[in-house]
Amino acid sequence: MAIHPLWEQYPKIYKDLIETKKIMEKSVKIRNKEITKALRLFFDAGGKLLRPAYFLLFAQCGEVESPKKMYRLAASLEILHVATLVHDDIIDDSPMRRSLPSIQSEYGQDVAVYTGDFLFTVYFHLLATSTKNLRTIEMNAHSMKRILVGELDQMNLRYNTDITMKQYFQHIKGKTAQLFEFACYEGAYFGGLSKRMQLMAKRTGYNIGMAFQIMDDILDYQSTEESMKKPVFEDMKNGYYTLPLILAMEGHEEEFAILLNKRDQLTAEDLNQAQYLIQKYQGIEKAESIAERFTERALSGIAKLPDSEQKNILYQVTETLLKRQN
Amino acid sequence: MAIHPLWEQYPKIYKDLIETKKIMEKSVKIRNKEITKALRLFFDAGGKLLRPAYFLLFAQCGEVESPKKMYRLAASLEILHVATLVHDDIIDDSPMRRSLPSIQSEYGQDVAVYTGDFLFTVYFHLLATSTKNLRTIEMNAHSMKRILVGELDQMNLRYNTDITMKQYFQHIKGKTAQLFEFACYEGAYFGGLSKRMQLMAKRTGYNIGMAFQIMDDILDYQSTEESMKKPVFEDMKNGYYTLPLILAMEGHEEEFAILLNKRDQLTAEDLNQAQYLIQKYQGIEKAESIAERFTERALSGIAKLPDSEQKNILYQVTETLLKRQN
Repeated sequence: MAIHPLWEQYPKIYKDLIETKKIMEKSVKIRNKEITKALRLFFDAGGKLLRPAYFLLFAQCGEVESPKKMYRLAASLEILHVATLVHDDIIDDSPMRRSLPSIQSEYGQDVAVYTGDFLFTVYFHLLATSTKNLRTIEMNAHSMKRILVGELDQMNLRYNTDITMKQYFQHIKGKTAQLFEFACYEGAYFGGLSKRMQLMAKRTGYNIGMAFQIMDDILDYQSTEESMKKPVFEDMKNGYYTLPLILAMEGHEEEFAILLNKRDQLTAEDLNQAQYLIQKYQGIEKAESIAERFTERALSGIAKLPDSEQKNILYQVTETLLKRQN
Repeated sequence: MAIHPLWEQYPKIYKDLIETKKIMEKSVKIRNKEITKALRLFFDAGGKLLRPAYFLLFAQCGEVESPKKMYRLAASLEILHVATLVHDDIIDDSPMRRSLPSIQSEYGQDVAVYTGDFLFTVYFHLLATSTKNLRTIEMNAHSMKRILVGELDQMNLRYNTDITMKQYFQHIKGKTAQLFEFACYEGAYFGGLSKRMQLMAKRTGYNIGMAFQIMDDILDYQSTEESMKKPVFEDMKNGYYTLPLILAMEGHEEEFAILLNKRDQLTAEDLNQAQYLIQKYQGIEKAESIAERFTERALSGIAKLPDSEQKNILYQVTETLLKRQN
C-alpha cells in the first residue's frame, strides 16, 4: 500500500497514514464489488492524504488517548473529501481524477451520485462509531454543512465576469479551506491542546487551505518552462474565474469581457489571447504573492506550537507543499 | 401552512406536523435564496410527511420527554427523505416531483447534486443538535448507510429482465422500507417503549414501507376506470422492472423478452402489448395480494401496541394509506 512520497521521510506519520488508509479501504467494502474496487483504486492513486495527515500531526502535538480512534477520525476526513470530489466530477463532467477515469466517466452519473452519497454515509458512520464525544459530532456536522452551503452560495458565480476577490475567497473557503481548517482544529482538540492553540490550529488550517487552493488555481494558468506544459485553462472554460484571472482583469474588464462572454465557446486562439492578457497584467505573479501571504501566516501559526518533532514535520511539510513549483 | 388532508381528522398530530414543518423550513434557510425558496415550495407541495408522522405517533405511544426535540428528529427524517428524492430525480432525469418542476429540471443537475448533499448535511446537523444520545446518532448513521448501500447494490438491476422477486424486495427495502422501519423504531425508542415493542415497531415500519412501495409501483401500471387515466409505464421505460411485471413474467419470460429487450426504445404499441400481457397474466392482482400481506402484517403489529389514542390513529392511518385506491 503506497503512500505519497511527500511523507516518505517521516516514518511515524507514514505508518499512521497506512493505518488510516486501511480503515478507508475497509469502510468501503460493500456487495457492489465494482464500486468497492473503483474506490480502492482511487484511494491508491496517489492522493497526499493531507487532511488526515494534518489532523494526526496536530493531534500528536499533544497527548493522544487512543491512536486507533484517531485513525478512524482521520479516515473519516479523507472519506468526506473523496465524497465531495466524486460529486464535483459530476458537475464538471470530468473525465479524469488522479490519472484514473472518474467514477462519473467510468460508471455514469447515476453511480457517481449514489457513490458520493454512500461516501457521505461512510463518513457519518465512521464518525458516529469513533467517538463518544457529541461535541465532535456537532463540530463535524457544522463543518460539513458549511462546506455545502458554500457550494450552493457560489453556484451563481459561474461565468460571472463581475466576480470579486471577496467572492472568490468565500468560494475557496467553502470548497477547500473549511475542511483543512476543521482537520487541524479537530486534531488540536483531540490532542488536548490549549483553547488558544486550538484556535491557532483552526486559523492555520484555514491559511493552509487558502494557499493550497490558490496555488492549485494558478497551476491551471501556468506553463512552466521545465515541463513545457501548455496551460489547460480548464477552469476558465468551465466558467470558474479564479484568482489569476480576477487580478489580471482588475482595471481591464473590457479587454477580458470580449473573450469571456464567449463562455464555454472559447477557441484555441481566444485562450492564447487570454494567456497573453493574464501575463501582460501579471495575474499569476499577483496571485502567487497572495498565496504567499497565506503561506506565511500558516507557517507563523505553526511556529507558535510548543516545540516537538511533530511541530517540525508540520512546518517542513507545509513549506514543501505550499512552496511547490510544479 | 398546509398539511396533507390525510392528517386533518387528527388535531394533535396535525399540530405536531406543523411544528415539524416549521423546523424543516427554518433549517434550509441559506444565503442562496433560490434554493431556499425551491425547497420550501417543495415542502409545501403536499407531501404526506409519513416518516415524521410515524416517528411521532410511535413515540407518543409511550412517554415523550421533550416534544421540541421530537419535532427536530421528525424533521430530520423528512429532510433525509427529501435529500434522496432530489438525487433520485437526477438519476431518472425526472421533470416533475409533487406537481412541481424537480430541482434537477428547474436548476440543472449541478444545483441538484449540491442541494441533495446540502440536505444530507442539514439532516446530520439537525440530528447532532437534537440529541445527546450517541446511540441515536449511531442508529441513524447505520440506517442511512444501509439506504445507500441498497441503492448501489441494485444499480445493476436496471433493464435486467432476469430480476427475481427476492432482488426486487431487497431493492425496495433499501429504497423505501429502511427509512420507514427506522422512523417507527426511532419513535418507539424515544417513547421509551419496551424492547419487545421497539422491535415490533421496527418490523411494522418495514411492513408499511414494503406495502407502500409495492402499491406505488402498481400505480404505474394501473389504469383506473374512474380516472380513465392511462398507465404511464415510466418505470418500465426507465428499466425499473417492478413487482407487477416480475409476477406477470413468471413462466412467460420469452413473451416479455421481445418487448423488454427494446429497453428505453419501447413504442406506444409495445406499451399496449405489455399492458395486455400484464393483464393476461394477472401481474397487478398478484402484486396487490402481496402488498396486502405486508399491510396485514403491519396492522397486526400495530394491534399489539398498548391501547391508546395514538395506537388507534396509527391503525386508521395505516389502513387508509395502504388500502388507498388511487
